[in-house]
Amino acid sequence: MRARVFVSFKSTVLDPQGQTICNALHGLGYQAIGNVRQGKFFDISVADGTSLEQARKDLEVIAHEVLANPVIEDYQVEILD
Amino acid sequence: MRARVFVSFKSTVLDPQGQTICNALHGLGYQAIGNVRQGKFFDISVADGTSLEQARKDLEVIAHEVLANPVIEDYQVEILD
Repeated sequence: MRARVFVSFKSTVLDPQGQTICNALHGLGYQAIGNVRQGKFFDISVADGTSLEQARKDLEVIAHEVLANPVIEDYQVEILD
Repeated sequence: MRARVFVSFKSTVLDPQGQTICNALHGLGYQAIGNVRQGKFFDISVADGTSLEQARKDLEVIAHEVLANPVIEDYQVEILD
């Protein structure tokens, strides 16, 4: 089973890296770009014997405790297959 | 229009950060985790007047020229809405 965990800054948190990319794109002539926010994702493979519920439960805990900083970041767990 | 560009190491490139996370998860008792690969994503908003073809074309160029290093990274452009 494969899963993908998305981690990104909460929308209320400034994202200077995304802002820098956005400014660079405007400088390169891409005026249609309105906003850029950067995030991370983690492609995680889970052993085949694991049940979907167990995998989802574990991944929620892993995302909350290990992959994201819940004070400033949101996360989202997606089971791919 | 919103788009998401995914950038990750090519599968042939080592991902030490993902490997470290994987080892940490095993240390925490998550033995079912087989592999972790980390990547980046960019949520990009495009001005509403832009056509879908133009947006996709621009974003492919932006991903290739600005967001990713095509020597070691793969990228994927997804139009969200």
